[in-house]
Amino acid sequence: MGSNSFGKIFTVTTWGESHGKAIGAVIDGCPAGVAISEEEIYQELQRRRGGTPYTTPRKEKDLPEILSGVFEGKTTGAPISIIIYNHDVKSASYEPVKDMIKPGHAGYTYLSKYGIHDYRGGGRASARETACRVAAGAIAKKILRHHNIGCRAFIKMLGGVEIEPCYSDALSDPRVKKRLDEAISSGDSLGAVIECVIDNVPKGLGEPVYEKLQAVLSKAMLSIPACKGIEFGSGFAAASMMGSLHNDEFFMADDGAIQTRTNNAGGLLGGISNGMPIVFRLAMKPTSSIFKKQNTLTYSGEKAYFEMPEGSRHDPCVALRAIPVVEAMAALVITDALLMMKLSRIDTNYETDCSYISKPSF
Amino acid sequence: MGSNSFGKIFTVTTWGESHGKAIGAVIDGCPAGVAISEEEIYQELQRRRGGTPYTTPRKEKDLPEILSGVFEGKTTGAPISIIIYNHDVKSASYEPVKDMIKPGHAGYTYLSKYGIHDYRGGGRASARETACRVAAGAIAKKILRHHNIGCRAFIKMLGGVEIEPCYSDALSDPRVKKRLDEAISSGDSLGAVIECVIDNVPKGLGEPVYEKLQAVLSKAMLSIPACKGIEFGSGFAAASMMGSLHNDEFFMADDGAIQTRTNNAGGLLGGISNGMPIVFRLAMKPTSSIFKKQNTLTYSGEKAYFEMPEGSRHDPCVALRAIPVVEAMAALVITDALLMMKLSRIDTNYETDCSYISKPSF
Amino acid sequence: MGSNSFGKIFTVTTWGESHGKAIGAVIDGCPAGVAISEEEIYQELQRRRGGTPYTTPRKEKDLPEILSGVFEGKTTGAPISIIIYNHDVKSASYEPVKDMIKPGHAGYTYLSKYGIHDYRGGGRASARETACRVAAGAIAKKILRHHNIGCRAFIKMLGGVEIEPCYSDALSDPRVKKRLDEAISSGDSLGAVIECVIDNVPKGLGEPVYEKLQAVLSKAMLSIPACKGIEFGSGFAAASMMGSLHNDEFFMADDGAIQTRTNNAGGLLGGISNGMPIVFRLAMKPTSSIFKKQNTLTYSGEKAYFEMPEGSRHDPCVALRAIPVVEAMAALVITDALLMMKLSRIDTNYETDCSYISKPSF
Amino acid sequence: MGSNSFGKIFTVTTWGESHGKAIGAVIDGCPAGVAISEEEIYQELQRRRGGTPYTTPRKEKDLPEILSGVFEGKTTGAPISIIIYNHDVKSASYEPVKDMIKPGHAGYTYLSKYGIHDYRGGGRASARETACRVAAGAIAKKILRHHNIGCRAFIKMLGGVEIEPCYSDALSDPRVKKRLDEAISSGDSLGAVIECVIDNVPKGLGEPVYEKLQAVLSKAMLSIPACKGIEFGSGFAAASMMGSLHNDEFFMADDGAIQTRTNNAGGLLGGISNGMPIVFRLAMKPTSSIFKKQNTLTYSGEKAYFEMPEGSRHDPCVALRAIPVVEAMAALVITDALLMMKLSRIDTNYETDCSYISKPSF
Repeated sequence: MGSNSFGKIFTVTTWGESHGKAIGAVIDGCPAGVAISEEEIYQELQRRRGGTPYTTPRKEKDLPEILSGVFEGKTTGAPISIIIYNHDVKSASYEPVKDMIKPGHAGYTYLSKYGIHDYRGGGRASARETACRVAAGAIAKKILRHHNIGCRAFIKMLGGVEIEPCYSDALSDPRVKKRLDEAISSGDSLGAVIECVIDNVPKGLGEPVYEKLQAVLSKAMLSIPACKGIEFGSGFAAASMMGSLHNDEFFMADDGAIQTRTNNAGGLLGGISNGMPIVFRLAMKPTSSIFKKQNTLTYSGEKAYFEMPEGSRHDPCVALRAIPVVEAMAALVITDALLMMKLSRIDTNYETDCSYISKPSF
Repeated sequence: MGSNSFGKIFTVTTWGESHGKAIGAVIDGCPAGVAISEEEIYQELQRRRGGTPYTTPRKEKDLPEILSGVFEGKTTGAPISIIIYNHDVKSASYEPVKDMIKPGHAGYTYLSKYGIHDYRGGGRASARETACRVAAGAIAKKILRHHNIGCRAFIKMLGGVEIEPCYSDALSDPRVKKRLDEAISSGDSLGAVIECVIDNVPKGLGEPVYEKLQAVLSKAMLSIPACKGIEFGSGFAAASMMGSLHNDEFFMADDGAIQTRTNNAGGLLGGISNGMPIVFRLAMKPTSSIFKKQNTLTYSGEKAYFEMPEGSRHDPCVALRAIPVVEAMAALVITDALLMMKLSRIDTNYETDCSYISKPSF
Repeated sequence: MGSNSFGKIFTVTTWGESHGKAIGAVIDGCPAGVAISEEEIYQELQRRRGGTPYTTPRKEKDLPEILSGVFEGKTTGAPISIIIYNHDVKSASYEPVKDMIKPGHAGYTYLSKYGIHDYRGGGRASARETACRVAAGAIAKKILRHHNIGCRAFIKMLGGVEIEPCYSDALSDPRVKKRLDEAISSGDSLGAVIECVIDNVPKGLGEPVYEKLQAVLSKAMLSIPACKGIEFGSGFAAASMMGSLHNDEFFMADDGAIQTRTNNAGGLLGGISNGMPIVFRLAMKPTSSIFKKQNTLTYSGEKAYFEMPEGSRHDPCVALRAIPVVEAMAALVITDALLMMKLSRIDTNYETDCSYISKPSF
Repeated sequence: MGSNSFGKIFTVTTWGESHGKAIGAVIDGCPAGVAISEEEIYQELQRRRGGTPYTTPRKEKDLPEILSGVFEGKTTGAPISIIIYNHDVKSASYEPVKDMIKPGHAGYTYLSKYGIHDYRGGGRASARETACRVAAGAIAKKILRHHNIGCRAFIKMLGGVEIEPCYSDALSDPRVKKRLDEAISSGDSLGAVIECVIDNVPKGLGEPVYEKLQAVLSKAMLSIPACKGIEFGSGFAAASMMGSLHNDEFFMADDGAIQTRTNNAGGLLGGISNGMPIVFRLAMKPTSSIFKKQNTLTYSGEKAYFEMPEGSRHDPCVALRAIPVVEAMAALVITDALLMMKLSRIDTNYETDCSYISKPSF
């Protein structure tokens, strides 16, 4: 499987460059019978698009078009192709800096690897690609909803400011807005910590050893541009704890469910879910594109000053738009795990199982 | 590919339970011509075995036997099967607690998933499995050595104590030994932070989008038992930094090499190596097995007190023995990336390439 | 990897239904630097399109559009997305027979599997999907051309008529045209045998055991609609031969090349190429869509007479249009094998290799 | 996934050389709860071992040892490692011919590929590897038995002699024994056609497009040493049939089951099972190892006479011992398809499904 695909059963392959004609995703392995519409995908895409306060002024309508795999409103088991055309593209502005190493960007490493690079707007390395993840994630979320599983991410800290729980979202916290305004006015950018909570996870999700759920989630999250780290449950704090404090005590809740009093484990033991919420946090670096002049080199090794091309556009804090991307990747991982879960035990009631398999379908 | 396999080209499949007859690894996709001996694998295994101060008293000789894939001292391209027999097994001691949920362990989740679990010594979920990773990693390290690439991990912090750089290893720091002695005497355990540095990495390693090098390394590391988090370069600190500080400045070193003055990126831009050392840190939780009595439930939901069975053995700090495991997993990831690197560009000199492919081999 | 993807390194994922908006392919893992144009892909597509004598009257322009992965005329290592819009679609005509089991078609089995089926024109099971294979194969062929490797397929037998070698293609043989005319006038269809020869294959291509080149080629070919069988070299005739006759004798040709006098092996020994042409033949069944009335059942089990809907269109012999599909699949397999070949041996000259990996690219 | 692995969910990785210490298989992805014993695996292995009339005199006890993945007689979901030691190895005899190209064998191509080859007894390319397939297949067969699915293979033709249906197996046909006796006395070998029938296959098995059941079965079968071709249902004969004859007519059987009157499709439409038996035939070449002197070259290109080393041992007709291998590979493919089948549709009754996933397991 290529490096532009993700997932074992519910697989997503994305394609497209920031300043190409279009971007898209092909979802293969989605079970038949899932009701999905372009409208539902559009709703998720709206959560990550720019053009809103504190995000890039690049305004993409992000209208997703389903080209295959859905018939009469339901998935058919055939691959689902979704295309999103790029409209608000201003490539010409990148010409003047195309021979300079752009600090903090992937242009240098892509060129090292491939010897050729579509430098316009970051090409394939651009966060524009994450729109495709959100589109695919919308279908995964639809499946999870049937299982009452929810994936919700939110800003936990931004530019050094811990978000008070009373604020529904980070931008409603006045201290955060102040930090963002300062960063914008100085042509700079900010990092953030995102927390993600996956609720109502059934016990037994995740595969052992190399496909532990925390391993697969980590891969999913660290593939998101600007993500620098991840921690589950107690995370890095666990390194300073003693085992007697860290071990979560099991008890029986009033409804008879087996739970733990604390959740240092972050919902996972041995890589498999224990029925508690799965909790992890992500370190998001400050946006690499800033409006300050920076020292750098040209690709031929001469000293140069890098300045963002006039009219170029960026987010002061990429974490703000990464929220739906984090949720989408989490949804993809959990959907895949749910499907794998069906394969973990042999059916003990073969008669039933046989009838299931060959039951008349018409 | 099953959940007990790792890698895309250089693949490792491990098998075996803690208290079964043996454990083992099958390495498939190793190029032909690598000189490797049981002795070299044994040397790596010695670095993680117990029976030494501050590790589990379980003493496994860990003598690896190569059963296939090596002929006259060199790999042949055929799968390499390595077996390590379990000798120092004391399963009977687990009988009394087999109906209790063991706090912090995978028994509960494995049983939720599979409906059956080899509870002896943790079964498949035991860290004993990591011996197989170290064995496979020894071959990967051998390949990396030819490219002068080194993977070295070390304890950065243990039980709240930052290791002074003057100490060659954590156990030579008296404050660390004191913490460990305290933990042992109170029947408790400690967490730690491990740092790993990969030196002399060529530019261009790593695949884009979903197989970014940080994503694959994260998956590798978070699959190690007790690992709770990972961060690259500036990591979680990046969340509080501004872009103008975080972006690493490119400059030309005296030898003409393009480098960066800082390494906040941890050696990776857009998921691909930039020629600087790859640096990451891992949060390791305190060992779940402790000698203190703990409240828990039986699997049927009754309250119970869990106590480690008499004669059971554990590490006061699993991170100490995880060092060679971290290095092994890093070596596996980088070896795989080196092999993938050969596929990134079409050969422009076809005559040469053709002759390479069909050149007489005898 | 999903069931709509093919290949290990050079991977192709196709999507789209016969009567949907469009069909397409995403190629991931193509090396950077391959010169490719929409025109080159179009040329290959023209070889399989209908609207010509003895093919379906459905006329698709089959204009491929490259949406990503190509920059300034060359592949960049990013996924290549190719889209082909469906224009000449007449879905309405399928309404009257949508409740009947269509003899020889996949509608019945798809519905058994998924409980839902886009019945229009065969949906995902339609041979229309093979246009995407041809598009992807055009890129693979481009790579093979650099290595002087050619994949050529041709009709060996059609409707019981062996094609004389003097005819450049089957349709130039008057006996074949006669058979086709008879079939068309009686509303019936014909089968055929296709032969494929891969020339100038370097020695050592193919992976052992489960990925033997004949195994991977067989999977590729048997995934083509209407293909019922495959045989390599002497094939089924080998079953009646003695070993002393079947073994190909090695000798040294005048140019010093090691060759075999016969090629019963079909160019493969132990699944790996021996330098002789790879030769295989395919059994292609007669088109399932015929204009004769056929007994069948409705999906609810009642007896019915199936008749092709008025205005529906089909090929009298699908094998005629399968020729470029066979070549495309062969090209995909051989390209993948060529890439895998780069991974079979460790580089003995590490200095050289290191320099290759980190060589400045700008 | 490496080239020594097979299967998507139920995966098998085999290792070991003909004249190494041992051979083995690791099965990953087997559902938990399958009752399996070494005895059951042994029974299957006995069906393919040599030392019986008309097979190689090499007598391997073929005692399989289960090293992991089975606890108290049942699979646990952990990888199942099976080892079979090689006992009757006589490697020394291959010394004199190790510099000669062995006609019809893989030594030449392996050396071309890898530059190194364990020449003893064919090394990794030896049919000895198929013992591991049979061992893994024994577990798959156990799963299939619960679904009443049977895979049975038999000799259809041997050395030009069609086996009369009245003979329970080929060796009970006196004309076959005569052919074999002639071949043995002249130091020669014979080919054969094997037929395999898979009974009681539920409708809907198999994945579309590139993972059609006939494609996956073809890959499985063509990976068996000496297999030169495969055909499904009417197979190559279909190439001379007209569509009106070839299409299988659907009708309702007395028990209300939808069936077809003929089975030219071989049980598969569009790559998915239609409920009729899956039927295919394999062309098996005559054993390459014969006792007649053969012209060949040395690896350095000099003319030579190849003669089997004294005391070397071979089968006069490899097809005889391939029967259980064909069945094992068929069982692996069908088991995998059965598991995949669980993923084809979304569960419409989510309440039920949720309870299944999180149901208390203790």
